[in-house]
Amino acid sequence: MTREVYVGVDLGGTALKVGVCDGEGRLLYKDERPTGIADGVETVLDRIAEAVRNAANASGAGWDRVAGVGAGIPGFLDIPNGYVKWSVNLGWRDVPVAAELRRRLGVPVVINNDANVAALGEAWSGAGAGISDVVCYTLGTGVGGGIVVGGRLIEGFNGMAGEFGHMRVVPDLEAVQCNCGQKGCLETVSSATGIVRMARDALERGSETSLSSLERISAKDVFDAAKAGDEVARRIVARAALYLGKSMATVAVIVNPRRFIVGGGVSKAGEFFIAQVRESFLRCAPAAASEGVDVVAALHGNDAGVIGAAGLLLRR
Amino acid sequence: MTREVYVGVDLGGTALKVGVCDGEGRLLYKDERPTGIADGVETVLDRIAEAVRNAANASGAGWDRVAGVGAGIPGFLDIPNGYVKWSVNLGWRDVPVAAELRRRLGVPVVINNDANVAALGEAWSGAGAGISDVVCYTLGTGVGGGIVVGGRLIEGFNGMAGEFGHMRVVPDLEAVQCNCGQKGCLETVSSATGIVRMARDALERGSETSLSSLERISAKDVFDAAKAGDEVARRIVARAALYLGKSMATVAVIVNPRRFIVGGGVSKAGEFFIAQVRESFLRCAPAAASEGVDVVAALHGNDAGVIGAAGLLLRR
Repeated sequence: MTREVYVGVDLGGTALKVGVCDGEGRLLYKDERPTGIADGVETVLDRIAEAVRNAANASGAGWDRVAGVGAGIPGFLDIPNGYVKWSVNLGWRDVPVAAELRRRLGVPVVINNDANVAALGEAWSGAGAGISDVVCYTLGTGVGGGIVVGGRLIEGFNGMAGEFGHMRVVPDLEAVQCNCGQKGCLETVSSATGIVRMARDALERGSETSLSSLERISAKDVFDAAKAGDEVARRIVARAALYLGKSMATVAVIVNPRRFIVGGGVSKAGEFFIAQVRESFLRCAPAAASEGVDVVAALHGNDAGVIGAAGLLLRR
Repeated sequence: MTREVYVGVDLGGTALKVGVCDGEGRLLYKDERPTGIADGVETVLDRIAEAVRNAANASGAGWDRVAGVGAGIPGFLDIPNGYVKWSVNLGWRDVPVAAELRRRLGVPVVINNDANVAALGEAWSGAGAGISDVVCYTLGTGVGGGIVVGGRLIEGFNGMAGEFGHMRVVPDLEAVQCNCGQKGCLETVSSATGIVRMARDALERGSETSLSSLERISAKDVFDAAKAGDEVARRIVARAALYLGKSMATVAVIVNPRRFIVGGGVSKAGEFFIAQVRESFLRCAPAAASEGVDVVAALHGNDAGVIGAAGLLLRR
């Protein structure tokens, strides 16, 4: 009982998740509470510190065995200095999170981008366990991701590494505007938002589909309809999978990982979706870059964030 | 005079280059001789060993100060095991180069892909000196490249990292077949071969251009004509630059380097070409991934290979 443990924090605009991991990335304990952003920065930082201490004790490890704390945070970060430059989700600007938590907890604290951290969690003890080079996509409201090479995260000069959502993969003729200012980004077709948009476009064009009976369409509705044989929904899912696989073919000739992992809400569609992504990847990539490379679903689900955050200190 | 030196070997199908560097990547001595592939594998290996010993002595360092040898080799390699799986340029199959050279020389020997090695040379003491995250493109017969993160090369699962030439960047309607089996690869437009092909296509279409007076067209002819104001040549150069910059915008949201370096024969066109590449990159990349990122010409020219090879041992 003398081995060290690592505490991970997944700080979202709505939920504050905390997890305690051992040195192999096994989740010993987890806890979730509202972030309570409206209470202000100081109170939220106190709340995080309290949640971290509680989790260490509730896990059975005890505070003395905590080697450090990692936090995954959405937004633009100064990672080396542990600084939030600007986070839309948190409404925070210029907050020295690592220094403030370190002051409250007295142990090393590191931060990283939330999508990078989720990728690290999957790479460490999830679908990438035992493999040193993996690329993880997170498909949710947007498309994020992370790259792990030799067991370590690639962060990028501006913290923009692994921003697969802004790869321009859709041909100009069919491209729609992305929030980033560009057109044809992967995020416009392979995120939950993109899938819902394509469904709405189909309805506006008067396409005949079971989706037209729904008052509000979610990405899950589109997947369910596709699985049930709805032709319009099938085409939308095929398109989301096509461009996702095409983007992987590009990533394969840039970082050439051993495995692609697909996580986030959209990946819940399971093998029905993953199989189409894999097929597109294999069709679009040169054989030398796809040989022996697989495309699999993530394993950690919503826990990837706290696990990867806990791993940040070990994998710097 | 007790500091260690590193010997780099740039092994091509035609020329065998050897260089001696100090620990800061300064080239102390270099030498070039014919590879003499026709003499067979054993003789070429003996020749490399002899050239390495000679260079160490001729540099003034002496053999005793050689810490190790690195070699850049074209083809498919098993990098961790120092093995050439298959090299078209050398006509070699299944040659344990590192072990054979180590046996002949008695010092550590490591190998890597020739484009990766050139990238490392530029990153170490060329246009990327002092910067830890750089991406280097080599534009020659094909388009190769290398990625250096935290001062180290990313190799990839199949040694295919940095194979920017096979990023599919040309829209389907204008895409031509690439040697890799795909269509629309960067190599089809931004390599010397691609530039010459576009010039021939223009002549076949009957375009009015000063290039039509030439018996054989080289990429340099196209650049010279473009600089002299030839409209057809200008459009070809603009197209090569457009897709090169577009591919960098994609690399920027994947590995997000601090600097892009453009080397190889095509880059000799200088700022006339680089300025167009930079403009395309800035237009195609999201601001967050291009802010503070620059696009510059390589500095080491043909020496990048031996310098990077010498650096392999230091940067593993």
